[in-house]
Amino acid sequence: MKYLYENNNNREVRINDDLVIGGNRKVVMAGPCTVSSYSELLATALRLKEMGVDVLRGGVFKPRKSPYDYQGLGEEGLEYLIEVRKIVGIPIVVELTDISYLDMYIDNVDIIQVGAKNMFNYELLKRLGKTNKPILLKRSMSATYEEWLLAAEYILKEGNTNVILCERGIRTFETSTRYTLDLQAIPYIHKFSNLPIIVDPSHAAGNRYMIEDMSRAAIAAGSDGLIIEAELNPDSAICDRNQTIDLDTLDRIVNYSKGNN
Amino acid sequence: MKYLYENNNNREVRINDDLVIGGNRKVVMAGPCTVSSYSELLATALRLKEMGVDVLRGGVFKPRKSPYDYQGLGEEGLEYLIEVRKIVGIPIVVELTDISYLDMYIDNVDIIQVGAKNMFNYELLKRLGKTNKPILLKRSMSATYEEWLLAAEYILKEGNTNVILCERGIRTFETSTRYTLDLQAIPYIHKFSNLPIIVDPSHAAGNRYMIEDMSRAAIAAGSDGLIIEAELNPDSAICDRNQTIDLDTLDRIVNYSKGNN
Amino acid sequence: MKYLYENNNNREVRINDDLVIGGNRKVVMAGPCTVSSYSELLATALRLKEMGVDVLRGGVFKPRKSPYDYQGLGEEGLEYLIEVRKIVGIPIVVELTDISYLDMYIDNVDIIQVGAKNMFNYELLKRLGKTNKPILLKRSMSATYEEWLLAAEYILKEGNTNVILCERGIRTFETSTRYTLDLQAIPYIHKFSNLPIIVDPSHAAGNRYMIEDMSRAAIAAGSDGLIIEAELNPDSAICDRNQTIDLDTLDRIVNYSKGNN
Amino acid sequence: MKYLYENNNNREVRINDDLVIGGNRKVVMAGPCTVSSYSELLATALRLKEMGVDVLRGGVFKPRKSPYDYQGLGEEGLEYLIEVRKIVGIPIVVELTDISYLDMYIDNVDIIQVGAKNMFNYELLKRLGKTNKPILLKRSMSATYEEWLLAAEYILKEGNTNVILCERGIRTFETSTRYTLDLQAIPYIHKFSNLPIIVDPSHAAGNRYMIEDMSRAAIAAGSDGLIIEAELNPDSAICDRNQTIDLDTLDRIVNYSKGNN
Repeated sequence: MKYLYENNNNREVRINDDLVIGGNRKVVMAGPCTVSSYSELLATALRLKEMGVDVLRGGVFKPRKSPYDYQGLGEEGLEYLIEVRKIVGIPIVVELTDISYLDMYIDNVDIIQVGAKNMFNYELLKRLGKTNKPILLKRSMSATYEEWLLAAEYILKEGNTNVILCERGIRTFETSTRYTLDLQAIPYIHKFSNLPIIVDPSHAAGNRYMIEDMSRAAIAAGSDGLIIEAELNPDSAICDRNQTIDLDTLDRIVNYSKGNN
Repeated sequence: MKYLYENNNNREVRINDDLVIGGNRKVVMAGPCTVSSYSELLATALRLKEMGVDVLRGGVFKPRKSPYDYQGLGEEGLEYLIEVRKIVGIPIVVELTDISYLDMYIDNVDIIQVGAKNMFNYELLKRLGKTNKPILLKRSMSATYEEWLLAAEYILKEGNTNVILCERGIRTFETSTRYTLDLQAIPYIHKFSNLPIIVDPSHAAGNRYMIEDMSRAAIAAGSDGLIIEAELNPDSAICDRNQTIDLDTLDRIVNYSKGNN
Repeated sequence: MKYLYENNNNREVRINDDLVIGGNRKVVMAGPCTVSSYSELLATALRLKEMGVDVLRGGVFKPRKSPYDYQGLGEEGLEYLIEVRKIVGIPIVVELTDISYLDMYIDNVDIIQVGAKNMFNYELLKRLGKTNKPILLKRSMSATYEEWLLAAEYILKEGNTNVILCERGIRTFETSTRYTLDLQAIPYIHKFSNLPIIVDPSHAAGNRYMIEDMSRAAIAAGSDGLIIEAELNPDSAICDRNQTIDLDTLDRIVNYSKGNN
Repeated sequence: MKYLYENNNNREVRINDDLVIGGNRKVVMAGPCTVSSYSELLATALRLKEMGVDVLRGGVFKPRKSPYDYQGLGEEGLEYLIEVRKIVGIPIVVELTDISYLDMYIDNVDIIQVGAKNMFNYELLKRLGKTNKPILLKRSMSATYEEWLLAAEYILKEGNTNVILCERGIRTFETSTRYTLDLQAIPYIHKFSNLPIIVDPSHAAGNRYMIEDMSRAAIAAGSDGLIIEAELNPDSAICDRNQTIDLDTLDRIVNYSKGNN
């Protein structure tokens, strides 16, 4: 064994007493691209919990390409998520972009997401490696599989073994889609590492109509789960509107993932 | 309606009395990368027929990257395929690289394949458009969806409506795989065209261990079928050995595709 | 020596008594994307000759992405080029897309161009290898250097040593330009082959304002020459209008290339 | 005017009384990939100063792909650079990967480099925007021109107008080179922004033999300068050995850049 990511224990990452990622059960994470209001978040979360979604996602610190684009509700949004988590009893996954917020995350966030834009931010990875929080490490839009696993290794090496990988599309010449979803990552990661891998079809497609088909494909290819942008009212989503699906579509995806269809 | 590929008839292409591509039944095509001997081809074809494979594939004119690489058995190989087709009673799909061989194909080959390297060879497409043979049009490793559909349009415009598309991976920066299989092509093609689309996981992966997972993914994403490199003895394959699967693996893929699992 | 393209003679390809490509003098080829009328072609050619352009280029058989796009004047356009060649006394380079036109090219065209879309069309390359005409082999938008050299090898192997390579941009994720011009190809080709290489900045940029800077860059990097889309009235160009430069700009490029500035 | 990067002042960034980037004089930055010892750094810097190199570069905090790769001398190396800067009287450019080191850089480093891996690290950019230090912002290996300019905007918006862009190659399918150097970035950046742009041919090529040709190409295309990995003894370089050039080659590049040849 050369790398920690090859460690031959089972590839399970435990989130809480009820939830394990990388086991037999496929995990579904879902929620709004960006948290907009407390009431809408609560309403969405209640429906998600009801339909069997395992983890609530929601953007609050948004690393947007332009500094003039909406950057998220910030701390206020994080507080909404924390409150909804408590009331609904659903774990949350939230992106961390600035290490100075780490303390707020440690006690209140179940899974800390490192976004694609920060996969090569090794200083952030090293700091997260010193915690024992589950880390959802998204693949950079231009990272090879090997670079991605080595980014995970930066976390593992510091002592944190709770790393979950997330394929979310890579940059190619195709312009009809936001990114090209690379599902070959699933058999590769399963063969060469012992880390769980989930798939984000939303950011890859950038188009609502593709999400259900690609979710099925990811599960069929052996993905340990999905993370999907979904809202009660997708058409009023603050950002990523075109790729946010409604809850009926999500319900079908959850059922497929859980083997109920 | 702007393009013929949007034609709103059903997207079925009929191969013969028993076989339709683009209908409810998923189609599986399989066989050796390169035809090596008559006896081996016959033995493989008999097993494929038995397990429910719909079409036998086999390379005989191989457009190899180096002129010093093995270029296939040529006409002799085509004769083997035609003979096996007759004896076993299985349709064949064969790549055409030189229009001067068209006459041999017209009467004896069920589906004429245009390889990825010739997708932009519009003169070849126009000539095939003047026939009424089913054409399997592979996506160039660097074609956008739109360019691919417009290549199909070159065939359709000449009067041949029997075009089947085949996604086989596009060129990206990832080097662990031969190409990146772009399954988002499936929902795109189904939404914006009325042509059937099948998937070739073999050339995209370039690695045997990925083929089964990616075949499942393609079917789950709605692909109308698969085309797979498989042999009785994959380890003795003349070319593409690393991506050629054995017949047991193929059997599982056929069962999954046909809904038997 | 493993490949013919490594042959250690000098890398010169002789076009006629006065013109050699790959020698000390940088060669400039220029002309309209698409030949539109005899009078305009003649007027342009006279100016080009005057300013020291070595070869007249002009599209007549255009492999366009859509079958409904203008496909060029065809044989009529070729006749214009041949007539202008005779009157002005300037060699011509013309793309060949269909081998059935070869006879017309053999006696009347100085350099036969194989376009990027046909670089992987090995049947065409093999046929051109049986002639002794200078062949301008454009790099496919998705070919590695090695694949490109091996495509050249298909021509060389048949006995035709008159191959000139042309870098014209590769496909990447950048969308502000048509392609990404890969000038690293120049030192690579000079190091690993003995073929001359010229650069087409027009198709790569797709934007007029970039052409002069990129032409200088190509020459400074050691390119053996340039091929540029230029017209008397770029704004009335039938196609590729945005990348066609005027003759004043071309004049500066010729002077830079010839070392007169 | 929509963005600060379009600001129509001249594009000059002043480093000190003697040095301006973006003016008429081309700027050359050079030095070791990684600082290895004080004596070697001093010896190299003295030679660089002598031959007219404007800025000394040297890696000390190295964001390497594997956590097991050599990560640089860290603070010790930074102290060497600061000491050599004082003795030789040459400005230094050093990469900053962790904001916690900012104080050490503010007083002692002339230009703070943001590496390609951190171009999307907006939190870092915002913090650097609150200083008034010149920032060398490298293009991410997968950033479009627009994303790169918007990353610069994150710095500019906080009040720091001293941003210098650096093209260093993008990720493509070509594997013979480390990255593909995209010189079309130069005319684009000059047209659509008012920021200076320099070029790093070393990381793009990954091969020593290409550096001189590509340096000439960058200057000829209008680059405001170069940043090059060069050492007294390239063959003993700790990292990036294959792309580190010797000082004789660098001397020719400096002369070309300064118009002395």
